[in-house]
Amino acid sequence: MEYRKIKDEDDHGVASDIESVKGKSHTVASSNIAMATLGVGSGERVNWKRKGVVTCALTILTSSQAILIVWSKRAGKYEYSVTTANFLVETLKCALSFLALTRIWKNEGVTDDNRLSTTYDEVKVFPIPAALYLFKNLLQYYIFAYVDAPGYQILKNLNIISTGVLYRIILKKKLSEIQWAGFILLCCGCTTAQLNSNSDRVLQTSLPGWIMAIVMALLSGFAGVYTEAIIKKRPSRNINVQNFWLYVFGMAFNAIAIVIQDFDAVANKGFFHGYSFITVLMILNHALSGIAVSMVMKYADNIVKVYSTSVAMLLTAVVSVFLFNFHLSLAFFLGSTVVSVSVYLHSAGKLR
Amino acid sequence: MEYRKIKDEDDHGVASDIESVKGKSHTVASSNIAMATLGVGSGERVNWKRKGVVTCALTILTSSQAILIVWSKRAGKYEYSVTTANFLVETLKCALSFLALTRIWKNEGVTDDNRLSTTYDEVKVFPIPAALYLFKNLLQYYIFAYVDAPGYQILKNLNIISTGVLYRIILKKKLSEIQWAGFILLCCGCTTAQLNSNSDRVLQTSLPGWIMAIVMALLSGFAGVYTEAIIKKRPSRNINVQNFWLYVFGMAFNAIAIVIQDFDAVANKGFFHGYSFITVLMILNHALSGIAVSMVMKYADNIVKVYSTSVAMLLTAVVSVFLFNFHLSLAFFLGSTVVSVSVYLHSAGKLR
Repeated sequence: MEYRKIKDEDDHGVASDIESVKGKSHTVASSNIAMATLGVGSGERVNWKRKGVVTCALTILTSSQAILIVWSKRAGKYEYSVTTANFLVETLKCALSFLALTRIWKNEGVTDDNRLSTTYDEVKVFPIPAALYLFKNLLQYYIFAYVDAPGYQILKNLNIISTGVLYRIILKKKLSEIQWAGFILLCCGCTTAQLNSNSDRVLQTSLPGWIMAIVMALLSGFAGVYTEAIIKKRPSRNINVQNFWLYVFGMAFNAIAIVIQDFDAVANKGFFHGYSFITVLMILNHALSGIAVSMVMKYADNIVKVYSTSVAMLLTAVVSVFLFNFHLSLAFFLGSTVVSVSVYLHSAGKLR
Repeated sequence: MEYRKIKDEDDHGVASDIESVKGKSHTVASSNIAMATLGVGSGERVNWKRKGVVTCALTILTSSQAILIVWSKRAGKYEYSVTTANFLVETLKCALSFLALTRIWKNEGVTDDNRLSTTYDEVKVFPIPAALYLFKNLLQYYIFAYVDAPGYQILKNLNIISTGVLYRIILKKKLSEIQWAGFILLCCGCTTAQLNSNSDRVLQTSLPGWIMAIVMALLSGFAGVYTEAIIKKRPSRNINVQNFWLYVFGMAFNAIAIVIQDFDAVANKGFFHGYSFITVLMILNHALSGIAVSMVMKYADNIVKVYSTSVAMLLTAVVSVFLFNFHLSLAFFLGSTVVSVSVYLHSAGKLR
């Protein structure tokens, strides 16, 4: 099993914090996020700047994620357990949230908005996204009986549509008709960019395969939209506290996943079997991506997140041309153009 | 050489007339066009209806054109001369225009607007579209040194962009930004729908190949836009007179093409060598398509024409599923969706 699957499991979901990383990390992306946290609460212009910075950070982190995957593939397969890596990602994010909070308490003192203690009413919804992801990840083991891995990558683009629909239904936020057109194009463009000579096989997917793909898209979209709802419910609440609780449940559900899926492997070979330098890099990257997703959920929304990760997918391919001598296909150029037009339409179609 | 090439040579261009066909032809499409001619000059609602009907007629005729091509391919190759077939298409359209005029003269009498006699000032621009097509068709013989036939089909989609740009520059008609987005998407969607496993080869086209493809797209776009300019210059002028003169020059330039390209073959084997029932059907279909193009130029514009022929391309594929057991590719579904969104954007993005 490859590390690639980590991406499916946490890129939409349970998010993290970055304030603790300020001044510690040396990556461009994390310093961007750190910049983003500086201007909290000082006006509309700052809000826009913050939104832009977290979106760029998410885009850069997501594309470097995919490049790490290619790199790890080139270096040979890694036979570590995916569930343990996921558990470590959640643990790292949880630890970073707590570290950030200790800093904030030291600087600003403990307030109602940044205290760690919580009420049942506040915390009761926090396990839901983590539970949805656990369920989706379990389904993922079964869908491969119906579609191959490249086919699954294509079907995953249904997430785009499900996120848009659930965003409309659950968060009750309206997109204009032009923006909906853009969203359909985003889905088509991403899929087109991924086309290869075997892609047509996905059309032969049987009914149970389609149903599972749609259910997984709905679960993933629902988890993303629900996380946004939780984070935005109390805007003044410190994001690090919200993240801390989200990740506590993320850790718990990933512990369950280890027991269900990899108990024997972990018991026999040990928790860290098959880990390497690149595994550590990928865990770090996934934790930072989680942070960026969280920031985008707090300061922008799921639609921005979907655009950001889609553009990241295209950036990855372009960077891979230079790094790995990849050849870009005509389908990639067409898909990228459609995605670019879609980004334009999203902005041009804003409801006034 | 296959009949397919006729399409390249006249679907954008020198147009024709249908009034003479009223009551004679039994095809759905031509009776649609006949309906379109009934309401000339009786108000805005009639204008809209006429615009819709001629657009539908063009769409249906263009798709049946492509289906005839598939049919003829299935039935085996036809080794007739393409230039003679083109000449006959022009002659048929010219004859139909004249027939329509004799009818009109009988019913309405001869007026300034429907008299056949013309001035040098009016007629001097009429050879230009025909000359542009002749030049483009000659180029077509050379471009196949640089790209294969499927690659050329893909490069032909550049026509969409060139038509849009020249429409803006020459006719000085504005499209809104949303409509431009739609037009770029139309080009991407059509190309995506045509993708197959060998399409990437087109990216290896050498510089002279690209230059020729772009020049051909510009020639074709210019011929279309120029024809619209000629036809619309004097709105009250009877379309049959305009067509008659356009086709007279179409015949003349196609006669030149016969001499340049097929003189030996025609001299040795005869003018009608290799003709069959399906050749006759295709000539008839091309003449009627020319009529529909002319009507769209008079009552709508080049943009509508491009959309109409693009949608026809998709319709053809869908019909072919039933007629010839074609399999639709994932790329086709994606391309069709992008084209559909593009059609929506063209209408939603109308400048108010």
